[in-house]
Formats: sequence, structure tokens, C-alpha cells
Amino acid sequence: MSGNTFGKLFTVTTFGESHGPAIGCVIDGCPPGMTLSEADIQPELDRRRPGTSRHVTQRQEPDTVEILSGTYEGKTTGTPIALLIRNQDQRSKDYGNILDTFRPGHADYTYWHKYGIRDPRGGGRSSARLTAPVVGAAAVAKKWLFEQYGTTFKGCMSQLGEIAIPFESWEHVPNNPFFAANASIIERLEAYMDALRKDGDSIGARIDVVAQNVPVGLGEPLYDKLDAEIAFALMGINAVKGVEIGAGFRSVAQKGSEHGDALTPEGFVGNNAGGVLGGISTGQDITASIAIKPTSSIRTPRPSIDKSGQPIAVETFGRHDPCVGIRATPIAEAMLALVLMDHALRHRAQCGDVKVDTPVLR
Amino acid sequence: MSGNTFGKLFTVTTFGESHGPAIGCVIDGCPPGMTLSEADIQPELDRRRPGTSRHVTQRQEPDTVEILSGTYEGKTTGTPIALLIRNQDQRSKDYGNILDTFRPGHADYTYWHKYGIRDPRGGGRSSARLTAPVVGAAAVAKKWLFEQYGTTFKGCMSQLGEIAIPFESWEHVPNNPFFAANASIIERLEAYMDALRKDGDSIGARIDVVAQNVPVGLGEPLYDKLDAEIAFALMGINAVKGVEIGAGFRSVAQKGSEHGDALTPEGFVGNNAGGVLGGISTGQDITASIAIKPTSSIRTPRPSIDKSGQPIAVETFGRHDPCVGIRATPIAEAMLALVLMDHALRHRAQCGDVKVDTPVLR
Amino acid sequence: MSGNTFGKLFTVTTFGESHGPAIGCVIDGCPPGMTLSEADIQPELDRRRPGTSRHVTQRQEPDTVEILSGTYEGKTTGTPIALLIRNQDQRSKDYGNILDTFRPGHADYTYWHKYGIRDPRGGGRSSARLTAPVVGAAAVAKKWLFEQYGTTFKGCMSQLGEIAIPFESWEHVPNNPFFAANASIIERLEAYMDALRKDGDSIGARIDVVAQNVPVGLGEPLYDKLDAEIAFALMGINAVKGVEIGAGFRSVAQKGSEHGDALTPEGFVGNNAGGVLGGISTGQDITASIAIKPTSSIRTPRPSIDKSGQPIAVETFGRHDPCVGIRATPIAEAMLALVLMDHALRHRAQCGDVKVDTPVLR
Amino acid sequence: MSGNTFGKLFTVTTFGESHGPAIGCVIDGCPPGMTLSEADIQPELDRRRPGTSRHVTQRQEPDTVEILSGTYEGKTTGTPIALLIRNQDQRSKDYGNILDTFRPGHADYTYWHKYGIRDPRGGGRSSARLTAPVVGAAAVAKKWLFEQYGTTFKGCMSQLGEIAIPFESWEHVPNNPFFAANASIIERLEAYMDALRKDGDSIGARIDVVAQNVPVGLGEPLYDKLDAEIAFALMGINAVKGVEIGAGFRSVAQKGSEHGDALTPEGFVGNNAGGVLGGISTGQDITASIAIKPTSSIRTPRPSIDKSGQPIAVETFGRHDPCVGIRATPIAEAMLALVLMDHALRHRAQCGDVKVDTPVLR
Repeated sequence: MSGNTFGKLFTVTTFGESHGPAIGCVIDGCPPGMTLSEADIQPELDRRRPGTSRHVTQRQEPDTVEILSGTYEGKTTGTPIALLIRNQDQRSKDYGNILDTFRPGHADYTYWHKYGIRDPRGGGRSSARLTAPVVGAAAVAKKWLFEQYGTTFKGCMSQLGEIAIPFESWEHVPNNPFFAANASIIERLEAYMDALRKDGDSIGARIDVVAQNVPVGLGEPLYDKLDAEIAFALMGINAVKGVEIGAGFRSVAQKGSEHGDALTPEGFVGNNAGGVLGGISTGQDITASIAIKPTSSIRTPRPSIDKSGQPIAVETFGRHDPCVGIRATPIAEAMLALVLMDHALRHRAQCGDVKVDTPVLR
Repeated sequence: MSGNTFGKLFTVTTFGESHGPAIGCVIDGCPPGMTLSEADIQPELDRRRPGTSRHVTQRQEPDTVEILSGTYEGKTTGTPIALLIRNQDQRSKDYGNILDTFRPGHADYTYWHKYGIRDPRGGGRSSARLTAPVVGAAAVAKKWLFEQYGTTFKGCMSQLGEIAIPFESWEHVPNNPFFAANASIIERLEAYMDALRKDGDSIGARIDVVAQNVPVGLGEPLYDKLDAEIAFALMGINAVKGVEIGAGFRSVAQKGSEHGDALTPEGFVGNNAGGVLGGISTGQDITASIAIKPTSSIRTPRPSIDKSGQPIAVETFGRHDPCVGIRATPIAEAMLALVLMDHALRHRAQCGDVKVDTPVLR
Repeated sequence: MSGNTFGKLFTVTTFGESHGPAIGCVIDGCPPGMTLSEADIQPELDRRRPGTSRHVTQRQEPDTVEILSGTYEGKTTGTPIALLIRNQDQRSKDYGNILDTFRPGHADYTYWHKYGIRDPRGGGRSSARLTAPVVGAAAVAKKWLFEQYGTTFKGCMSQLGEIAIPFESWEHVPNNPFFAANASIIERLEAYMDALRKDGDSIGARIDVVAQNVPVGLGEPLYDKLDAEIAFALMGINAVKGVEIGAGFRSVAQKGSEHGDALTPEGFVGNNAGGVLGGISTGQDITASIAIKPTSSIRTPRPSIDKSGQPIAVETFGRHDPCVGIRATPIAEAMLALVLMDHALRHRAQCGDVKVDTPVLR
Repeated sequence: MSGNTFGKLFTVTTFGESHGPAIGCVIDGCPPGMTLSEADIQPELDRRRPGTSRHVTQRQEPDTVEILSGTYEGKTTGTPIALLIRNQDQRSKDYGNILDTFRPGHADYTYWHKYGIRDPRGGGRSSARLTAPVVGAAAVAKKWLFEQYGTTFKGCMSQLGEIAIPFESWEHVPNNPFFAANASIIERLEAYMDALRKDGDSIGARIDVVAQNVPVGLGEPLYDKLDAEIAFALMGINAVKGVEIGAGFRSVAQKGSEHGDALTPEGFVGNNAGGVLGGISTGQDITASIAIKPTSSIRTPRPSIDKSGQPIAVETFGRHDPCVGIRATPIAEAMLALVLMDHALRHRAQCGDVKVDTPVLR
């Protein structure tokens, strides 16, 4: 209830701080009998981990995951699966100067007022480092969803600052440090980031994420609608300020005759819905976009106050991502996967045996 | 868990269908000792109710609320507050033609696949009529938040289709049927809606909503962040396809030196954060925007399929809002109020007695 | 979270006070497609209702239930089912003398300290009248469990004060006002109660309850064990002070060689387990017993204090059950049914498709 | 929701199996600012750990706890506190013979049917070893409750098999391996256990537990009553078959004039209520008793079946507690502490600022 558990039936409870001894999570509700080992989880963690290009934080973390429980002879038993990742590259000294001040745009000020105490080392609990356990947990969810329904997840950066990144092909995504679905624009993005880093500034980004082969019927109206839960999951990622499903804000200027995706025996015509109608999955691709704000930890000095309320200039040293959006794609996929996993279990709880003759459209 | 309860500590469980005998809700967790009667709730319901202008559905519902429990001699007792609203103007016959078909963009298809049965009368449970109990419950939350912290809620339509509605003053909002904070544009909006209705089409809208005098420290990281919960609440409103907090999607093209709101002894400089940092309220105004899609129930015939998967043209008769966005402002305020109320209680559970010397900025 | 919802997946949220306008509940999570009408619910309410013999409260309440939502053409739709019972026989004046005093053994004192306000009319929310909506909700659960698994529920009074009631046959239960599974002892029980009533005193009772044809595998270790949830459900009934599963307190003096129920191809030998091992149902009968304290509202004057802490003698008038245990049997069955229903849904969420070759023993 | 989290606001999510690499938990919701280190937790774990006398399992586990998160410079920060205990003395080979059979009275059979897979090493998840993380988490709760309210917890064994253990003084409890509040009976208990162990059998026990200096007003009627939650917590402990609050089953034969604890300006006269009225704490001592069944793992061969349903005799080797009740006292205290902690937070969420003039009785 203090907010460190994600999900209702497939729950992920995370713990840890950026520069504490370890981070990790407990996954509860995983169905029994699925083969699972660290080898299923590590690749997803590797996609997200820092230090893999000059455009992200240079902190060196192997993010090696250990499964502490929940499997027997390589299979899930239905009991909690604990994942442990030891922090390796803590550098508490880099953060000493921010102990008594508040970085603009950062959680320093709000944690301080809420708790009366905060762990300043690397942002403590508010660090994006805490997305690692979630990505690990989502690897378990992705595996189950794929084995049950063939569901897959994809994502890409579609905009970096003012640079729109036209979609060319998913196959480009793993081949560049930006998760861009475009090969020709990489050089421009590299140059842009190099200039930005030199300026000691940071920049926002837009990420698109898609789930394919989603079963029809997931989502619990009225409040735990699938799109509402996706919005919750994605807005909860560090630095996200906006979420769209399907046509998103384009819907504002659309007419009903244009927006509503027609149904034909061959499938839906269009996907303005983004795969969700009335809060329930249609079986089409689920499509969502998020806006990620620029990192608040920048080298450029900024006006702020200290703990006693006095004005002070804050300059952040240490290692930071100049664009947190660069590593956000696997995180967004992870959150989407956790939502679908949770709702897959919720759906079969209430409606497990519903059968209708109407064909499922895609 | 089937999704009909909103909130964790201040919970609202709703029930009812568009054309059933009644709609209502049970509010659990309201602090004891607050004066409360129907007179505190009815005005909010009146702001949302149908039939108040020619631009909304002509269904006539007084939406008279009855408090069934939870008060004694005009004060809350800490026990559940049940609100009952009897439906008055059901017309089941208007919906007979959609029993075996699926309206494009509507929940017909997904409810059918999920449950194997659906109430076709006015959309049943998926009708926007079900926002009435939520608005009623939020009136209770608003009252408590105002008495405790002076928190207030405002909202307005900022765009209707392609027509941007420049903000002039909050005082205009109650004086036009669109909740527009602008007096001079009303005539144009009226003409636009008249033409649209004549065409049998519908249109999207954008709604802005603000909470003022919010206490600092509300929100539960990591997952139940205040902005994540706001996104959940707003995306869960019927027809919403996008949610922004603060700068929203503008953050994508912002630099860190521009986005991060500087702190000064006189207050924050700017509010790109929308009043939330690290998932916790800053004490500034909380600002959010939503994109509302055009109503899917339109008179223009659309291609679809029937229950057996055969192609068919669907034309929707009956009474509908040609722009659901027109009545969405009080609903968006209500959802925001429920989120803040819930988090106010959650905050005092864990951190009730935290005190710091740092002044609260606005 | 304020405690007025029972269950996790099949949730029952109740509202109302003893002498308010109405009591009722919202059932969320009922699977779709089950036939359901008031006729399925009313008989269970009738078993519990007051005024049916001289040994219970003389308050006259027909407890007529109205289904407000969640069904369409006589079938559940998967949406919330709201039940409404209007109070008919409120007599607020009977309770005026207890507004400023606290009855020994009653919730007066604790509600007052917790909430700072209390509804004194008939005990307000703490009245056993609030078990009516639960019995109504359980009728829905019982119906589903019976249709799915053939599960049935039975209960009886096994002790009234110091009078043990030997079990003879379930068929006697509906034929006497005590829910005794014994025909020959009724006269003695009647005389006992008549004497007690004349003395203005009250008495405790013991109730046994059984579920039969329970599926194997229900229960969620470690904490939401089936027996733990049963204990929660039964101890939560008004006036209950003790709960046993299976051998209960007899286990204390048993040896392992005696207690552990042997397994044979023909079934379990004995049921000391009460149908639960490791927190999970075995498929055997689930057996539980509860201790019900004597009613605290008695005519005999008792020493107490008033609101200012001054000593005072309290004498309770009004209409009360001299033995709340007499009407407790259908309530205990109801709570047991709600637990099994909830766990049936929880089980199929996580383990829906588990199949083993080992035969199920009974 | 799969049942491995205890609590609503102060939540404890445990993980691990008896012979896996580690056990532990994540505590969420601990208020910030409390001093906390391993030294606060280890003593409670030491009270519970195995191998400390010849009357308990000879497994050697130091149960050394490591705090992985949630503190900064020795104080809680309000973020999740993860506790890790590495298993040291796993002996998987001892359990090989039970892989294909089901021990009578044990969770083997039900886990197998529920999950289709089970970890047979030491009972896997169903082992009483999993009470260690709970005891660790409860040490945190006890510390907070003591600092806030002076609340303390005590417990003792009051019966071993047929031997009643008269209460003499709490000071005897730490001085004997049985947690008996009696010095003179120890020799007899030792002899009894020695004989039992020689016979390869096991025995039940009764444990009493008390909380003192409990604030008035804890507990959430109607369903999450304090006594209902205590019953849930205590019945959920391995091997518990019965729970009593206050007078418990003695209430059955009591009259109202005897049971209801009179109130006087000097305090309550008696405590048949066990410190709870109407589901809410009175401020008196909270008193509860539990019945613990004899261990199901015994050396005496017992009839059972194997996975294919064939009859077989099961004889359990390995290291086991011949009376699990012997180590149950600190566990029962722990569960009681977790319930009170959770309800202390829940109470201040809804009713934090309630003040009445009526004095609090003890």
C-alpha cells in the first residue's frame, strides 16, 4: 500500500536504492510449471543496463540476477520468485554536495518533505536504477505470455528532442544505442547527443511500445480498465509526463466517423483504439506512446534553495543519463508486459471459461 | 479486484447500468465527523447531468442522490456512505438494433468476447452514465480536502475538435455549456456542434484540470506515484485516449535546463512538473490534460460485423452525446479529487507526523 | 481498506446501519452467465431474519432483497451485483438511553474512541443486522459453487450455554428455531431460553459448519491460507470469540501418530485436518466450529461509565436476541461460502490449468 | 494476491523455501525516521531459531539477517526494507524418499494437487522455516509500536500435550526451552519430550500470547476487525488448528451478565473480551490462545498413497521438531505484532485526528 508493489494477481514488490547493497524484487502469483532460470531474465536486464554506450550513464553495473526462490529443478512452483541484483559500482561521494540542496526537477524536494529523511546517494529510491528489478520481473511475465498466447513486445524511440525518428523497421532497434527503428538517422542522433553532453544539458524523448498477439478480453472495467492500467504503469516510469493509447491526442481533432475502427470479417480497419475498447483488449496490437522529460540532473548550474529555504545554485556532478529516454524502451515494454500478465490472470479468475462463437478479429 | 472499486484507502465501489433500475456507489474510508448531506453532493451531480443543453444527450435524468448510510445527525461516522441514484428515463427499445452487432469504436465487441453476455441497453455498464456515482463520491472527497487543506479543483475544455479554446478566465466556465474558460468563442462552438449534429457525426475534445492548494508530500513511490495514479484515474474515464501531467508531451523537445522548475525562496519558477516530482506532490498546482475521443455512437452508418462474424452496416439511433468531452470536465475534476483524497489518507498513514523546517513553496 | 469489503476476487462491500434507511452490498467479481434472480437470494435471507420465533429479537423485518444491477435477462453479466434491503422496523427511540453511556461487552465504547461519533440507534453499524447483506451475497456464491463443483454448506448449533446438542441428523436443522441437528432436545432448549429471557440475561453458543464437495487445491499459502481466511471470516462475525478447524483445540493433546489423517486409495482415514493441509483444501469436508459469546445487550443493570467517565448503571431496553448464536448458523455458512468462492477464483487465476494424475481423495 | 504478502499498510512479502539458497522478506510501509539496524532484528530471530535445545530440530541455522534496503545512516527512510537470510544447513538428501509420496497431515498432497509441482526439500515453501522472515519483520513492527505507544508483546506455552502449564511468571519464559511461564514443571516437560522423541512421535501444544499497552481504537469493522485479523494471522501459522480471543470457547457457557466486562472509572473489571469489542481494541491487554497440532513429520510409519494413488507406508527421516509448538511462541507474538502495526497505520489514515474527552480505561 506504500506503493512498492505493482500488480494485483501477478505482483512485483521491489526494494533497494541506487547505492545500497542490492536491489531486487519478489514476484508473487507466477503460474506453476513454467521453465525458468536466470538465462531467461539476464538478456532483458542487459538491454536496459547502464554503461553500454557513451550516450548513457557511465556507471558500470553488470546487473547480474540471482533467483533466490520459487523454482525447483528449473521450473516455477507457484511460490514467490525473488530476484536479487547486487550493486557493484556505488560511488556515494559523488552525491555529497546535494545532501542539503534540492535539484530542480528532481525528487529531492518532495522526498524530503514527505519523509523528513532521504537517501541522497544517486537519488536513493527515486533513481531510474530501480527499473532493473521490474525489467527482470517482466522477463518472467513475457515468457509466460508468449508461451500461453504468443504475445510479444516491441518498442522504439520515435523522437529525440526535436528530432522525429521515422519508423523504418523493428530490425534496426537492437543495432543502435537509441532503440531507434531507423538506421539512417543514427549518426544525427549521435551528433546531437554529443553536443548536448558537451553543453552539460539533457533532453526529452518519445517512446512507442507495442504488444502483439494479445488475447481479446483483458481488462476490468470500470476502473481497472486495461488502458487505465497501462497509463498507470507507463506514467509511473521515471521522468514520464504523458501517455497516449492508440490515436492518443490526435483523437481530439477526429470525428467519430473517422476515429471508430470499422470491423470487417477480415479484421479491424485501423487501430485508433490502440487495441483497447471500453477498457478491454480487442485482440489488436496494443499501442502506446510516452513522453519522457529531460533528466533533471544536469551540470549546468540552476537556481534552487537549501534545506533552510535559502537560495543557492545547484550543479550536479556524478554519472547521469543525459537522456533517460535512451534506456526507456525496454522499461516501457516491461511495464506493458506486467500489465498484460496481471490482467491475463485476472481475466481467467472471473471469466476463465467464457466461450463465444464470434470470431476474434486482429 | 474485478475493477469496480476505485482507490485504496478512500474507496469508491460503483454499481449499475445505464438502463437498469439504479446506479450508485459505496464510499468506504471517509474520515468521521464531517458534516455531510445530499445538499453537498447534488450540485456536483447537476454539473454533470445530461439534458442541460442541446449539445448533449437529451435523456432526462434528475440524478437525485439519496444517502443510504454512513451519516448520523448530518455527520459522517466513519462507516460506509452509500449513494443511490434511481434511473428515471430508461428507454430500452432504442437499443434493440445493436443487440447482435458491434458498433465500431464501442465496447460492444470487447464486452461480448470477455463476458459472453452483455447488457445492450444504452451500453449497459460501459455507458458514461456510470460516471455519475463517481462525481457524487468525489463531492465528498472535495469537501474533506477543502476543509483540511483548502484544496480546490477547476477544469475547462481547452479544445473542441480543431478549435483551440484560449484560456481567458475560470469565471466563464459555469456560464456556457462547454465548460470553456472563454466567453467570446462560445458562439463558434455552438455553431460547430450544430453542424456536427446535423451531419450525424461526433467529435473529440481536450480537457484541462487543475488542483490548487495541494499539500506537499502526497504520492507513494515507486508504483503508486501520484502522477501514475492520476493517469490511471483520467485514462479510465470513458473515451479518454491520452493523459498529460504538467508539460506533458512538450517535455519531449525540452532541454533539462528549460524543463526543471527552478526553486526560489519565493516559490517555484514555472510548473513544467505539473505539481509532481518523483511521484510526490510538490505543493504547486497539479495540472493535467486529457484527450477525449469522439463518441462512437453516431448516426452515420458504419461497416461492422454481427455476432456470427458476418458483415453488416451499423447505424446508431437513440440519445447520445455528440461530444462526450462536453460533459467531461466535472468528471475529470472528480477523478483527480478521488486520487488526492486517497493519497491524503495514505500519506498520513505512513508519514502522518513528519515535520521538516524547510518552507513549503508554491 | 476501511474494512467494509470482504474478499479479494469475489468481493462483497456492505453498507448500512441497523436503523438507517437501508442496508445492502455490492458484489464484484461474480462470473458472468449464471442465472440469478431475487428468488435465489431471498430464501437464505429468510433463514436468518429476525422475528421468526420467541427466542430471537421481535423486530419485524421482511428483509426483502432487490437486485439493482449486474444481471441482464436473468443472468449475471460479470458486472457488480448490488443488493438493496430497505429497513422497515426502525425504532430509534428504544436506544435513546444509551447515547451517553457504554454497554459492557458492546462496541459502544470502542466506536466512540475510534471515531469520536457513533450511531446509537440499534448499535448502528455494529449491529448483527449487518449480517443480512452478507447472507444475501453468499447466496450468490453458494449457487455458483454448487453449479461448478456441487459444493454444499451445512451448519448447526452444537451447544447452547452448558447444554451440548448431540448430532443426530442434518434433517432436523430446518425444523426447529435453534438450527439444532437433534429433535429430542428442542423442548429442553426452549425451556432454557424461556427461563433466560425471564431473567433478562443472555447466553453463548457453539456453532458447527461444514462445506462438502469442496475442490482440492483452494487456498493461497503462505498467508492467505484457506484455514486462515476461514478463521478471519468466522471470527469477524458478531460475538464470535473462538474458531476451530477440524480437530481444533483437541489437537493440543493429540500425538502425530493420531492426528495426521492417513491416506488410502479409498480416501482419507479421518478428518482431523478439517479439510485443510498446509493452508490448501484437501477435497475432504471442511469443518469448523465457532464460539459465540452471550449478547451484551441485556436487561440486567450493569456497572459502566458515561462519556465523561463517571460511573453509571446501564440497563438495555429495546429488542435483542437473548442468544445471538441462535441465528448464527446461516451466517457462519455464508462466511464459509464467501471464503471458498473467493479462493475458487483465486485458484483458477494462478493455477487454472494444472492437471495431475493423482486421484482426488475424499 | 497469491497470498505471500501479510498486511495492508504495513506489508510483509516473504520469499524462499526451506532448502533454497535464501529466505527473506520485503517490508513496505514502515514509517520513516526510526533508528533501525540488524541489531534490532537479530535477537528476535535468535529466539525462534532451530538447534537451540535437544527438543527441537537439530538443523543448524544461524539465521543471520542482512538489511538490504530502506535505511540510510541507520534510520528508516520510508522505502521498502528488505531482509535477507541465507540458508546454511540445507540437506536435500534427507527428503528424497518423500518425493513420490504424501506424508499424512502434511502439505505434500495439497501442494501437489494445487500446483502440479512441489519442492520436496524440507517441505519447500510449507516449512515452518518460513516463519523466520516474519519474525524479522515483526521486530521492526514491535520497535515502532513500542516507541509510539509503549506496546509490548509476551507469550508462553500453556499446555504441552495433556500437560497443562500453570502460569507463574513471565520471567521464567526465557529460561527454559519451552517458553513456559513456570519453573517447576520444566523437568516434567523435558522427560515427556524425551520419551516422545524416543517413540518417534510428535505432540500438540497450546500457546498464549498477549499485547500490552495497546492503543484504543485499532481495528476496522465490519470485516477487517482486529480480532478477525488476529485470528487470520494466528491460524495462518504452520500447524495451528484453533484460535481464541479473550474468553474464547469458555464464552459458550457464559451468561451475558457474567461475560460482559463492566466498566468503572478505575478500568474494566475483567477481560473476557480479550481487549477487543466490536472488532476494535479497547486499550486493555489483547489476549489470544492457539492450538498447535502435532508435527506431521514423524518416524513412525504411516499408511499413505503415492503419486499414482497406490498404497504405501511413509516413514519420515530428516530433522524435525517433535513439537512445533515449542518454537511457536515468538512466532505467535510476531503475527500479533504485525496485525497491530498494520492497524495502527490504518487507524491513523482514517481517524488520525479524532479526540474525545472520555478517559481511556485499561
